[in-house]
Amino acid sequence: MKVLIIGFGNLGQKIASILSRERECFPALGDLEVIPAGIITRSRGALIDPQGVDLAASLSMMERYGKFDAGSTFYSETGALEAAQSFEYDVLVEMSTLSIENHGEPAVSHIRAALERGKHVVSANKGPVAFRYSELAELAREKGCRFLFETVVMDGAPVFNLARCTLKGCTVKGIEGILNSTTNFVLTKIEQGFPMEEAVKEAQRLGIAEAEPSLDLEGWDAAAKTAVLANVLMNANITPYQVNRSGITGITEEEITSARRRGRYLKLVCRAKTENGNIKASVGVEELPENHHFSAVSGSGSILRIETDLMSPIMVTQEAPDLYDTAYGVIDDLLTLQRSMS
Amino acid sequence: MKVLIIGFGNLGQKIASILSRERECFPALGDLEVIPAGIITRSRGALIDPQGVDLAASLSMMERYGKFDAGSTFYSETGALEAAQSFEYDVLVEMSTLSIENHGEPAVSHIRAALERGKHVVSANKGPVAFRYSELAELAREKGCRFLFETVVMDGAPVFNLARCTLKGCTVKGIEGILNSTTNFVLTKIEQGFPMEEAVKEAQRLGIAEAEPSLDLEGWDAAAKTAVLANVLMNANITPYQVNRSGITGITEEEITSARRRGRYLKLVCRAKTENGNIKASVGVEELPENHHFSAVSGSGSILRIETDLMSPIMVTQEAPDLYDTAYGVIDDLLTLQRSMS
Repeated sequence: MKVLIIGFGNLGQKIASILSRERECFPALGDLEVIPAGIITRSRGALIDPQGVDLAASLSMMERYGKFDAGSTFYSETGALEAAQSFEYDVLVEMSTLSIENHGEPAVSHIRAALERGKHVVSANKGPVAFRYSELAELAREKGCRFLFETVVMDGAPVFNLARCTLKGCTVKGIEGILNSTTNFVLTKIEQGFPMEEAVKEAQRLGIAEAEPSLDLEGWDAAAKTAVLANVLMNANITPYQVNRSGITGITEEEITSARRRGRYLKLVCRAKTENGNIKASVGVEELPENHHFSAVSGSGSILRIETDLMSPIMVTQEAPDLYDTAYGVIDDLLTLQRSMS
Repeated sequence: MKVLIIGFGNLGQKIASILSRERECFPALGDLEVIPAGIITRSRGALIDPQGVDLAASLSMMERYGKFDAGSTFYSETGALEAAQSFEYDVLVEMSTLSIENHGEPAVSHIRAALERGKHVVSANKGPVAFRYSELAELAREKGCRFLFETVVMDGAPVFNLARCTLKGCTVKGIEGILNSTTNFVLTKIEQGFPMEEAVKEAQRLGIAEAEPSLDLEGWDAAAKTAVLANVLMNANITPYQVNRSGITGITEEEITSARRRGRYLKLVCRAKTENGNIKASVGVEELPENHHFSAVSGSGSILRIETDLMSPIMVTQEAPDLYDTAYGVIDDLLTLQRSMS
């Protein structure tokens, strides 16, 4: 399967590592074959080889120089959009960074360009699904190709695959969850007595929070995930701006620790619900009792509760995800595509 | 899709109701078409019609007389095995009762007969999967047909579909869970101050426990589910007799309530784990701390935790299942088959 890879940060490098150096550790990957026609980054160059860029070599180069080596035979400065529009590939793997202020661009344009050419898309960037899901899904249907994005909510833990494969006879009535690792980690640390600033630094040190953590702390990442879930599972057609949003920055350390002393937990809860045919979506801090399923989700864990018409509520919990989990979400989508193409 | 239905107890009747009387409540069932060539019961007669037995009429008849009406044009006394061997159908829907002492028979024979004829099978009976999974799965592969059984563990909540569709690149290393509703319900009631006998009666009144609850209380149902999970997710090839099993009958009410006073919970926990290439499986009561994910599972709820090589542990929780959940497990398998046949 020939792929065009856009973005080669921590996630792209972990995927490259799993598929090359670490490949033998994971026998269930079976005959998954990923041949990169190109790996394009925003500011660290690109590698291009129609015969397939060597993943292990690309990884070593990035580890050694922090960018692709301009002296390499395969080096190029082609941009992502141009590559999406002109390269030969089967699947676009979009791993650029979420942009709320640009409404998911430039990833939306990369994905649109691929779908218009009838190429499948795997997106690890939640922006396009949060801002343009209905348009992109419709385009994919029209062109007979797939638009997959398992990893954008709860990493590889089953969310969209779960809905598609296991809830196919159910109508989703509502979702709620703890979906942002950074804020949940920070809340747990503050409960343990750390000041917020130190908790955020620790989250950054562990790679849970970004260098610029405000998207997480102000609830934007959670709002984007809520929009994604509402759009995909409930046909909501909303953007993160339509999610009634507050983060954890308005909460004091004293409020968090005093809740714990009363045997309760403060959690940043995402919700979307159908009410009289309309979707109401929100992200905000809620106080929960000790013996609540959400209270047991500590640190970087996450949980999603899905209400349907036919079944009692289902919950999916992810305990302590790391980069392998995010990478698996992308790899699982690639497996889905390889099987559907064979 | 032409089906042969074996068993028409509470589950069969609920499925019939969802697919006929209640059909309009569940729009996501879409164009699912289930045409019963026959509905066969063990002691309450059978209805047969190659053109399709009327589900709503069968249901009314069963509700009115407690059996099929021998005066009906479609009445028959054909047995299940004969029907499986000779009728024309696409899918066998096996809903007879679990038998531990007969090692899953007669359901195993019904399923083998169907698979040998190249017919798909949906089983709501866990016996055949607990006792003969590898043989039946191999036969299904050989004959190019499907052997599905989503509902046998945690009802319709995604377990096998989840593994097949969302963990396909992972190797499952271990599972643990609370998988028997009756014992969990009884433990919760005892925590609330009810004597065990009354708790069991209440479970029976609510339709959670069978009239003969010993299979549940002694851990056999949980052991069968553990064997099913180990066989399907971990290629274990074991039977419920190889699960190191104890139920809740050896636990006193005082042990349960005293654990609660200490802020802890007693739970009947199922486990299977790969150790040095061997599978170790067990069912037994364990004491868990308050802030444990399993402690938040009360009443008839259930939870499954799956450990894999690639991802951090995933948990699936089912809050308060009823007969709709069990029915959905079967209906979801029928949807899977209809889609794969179309």
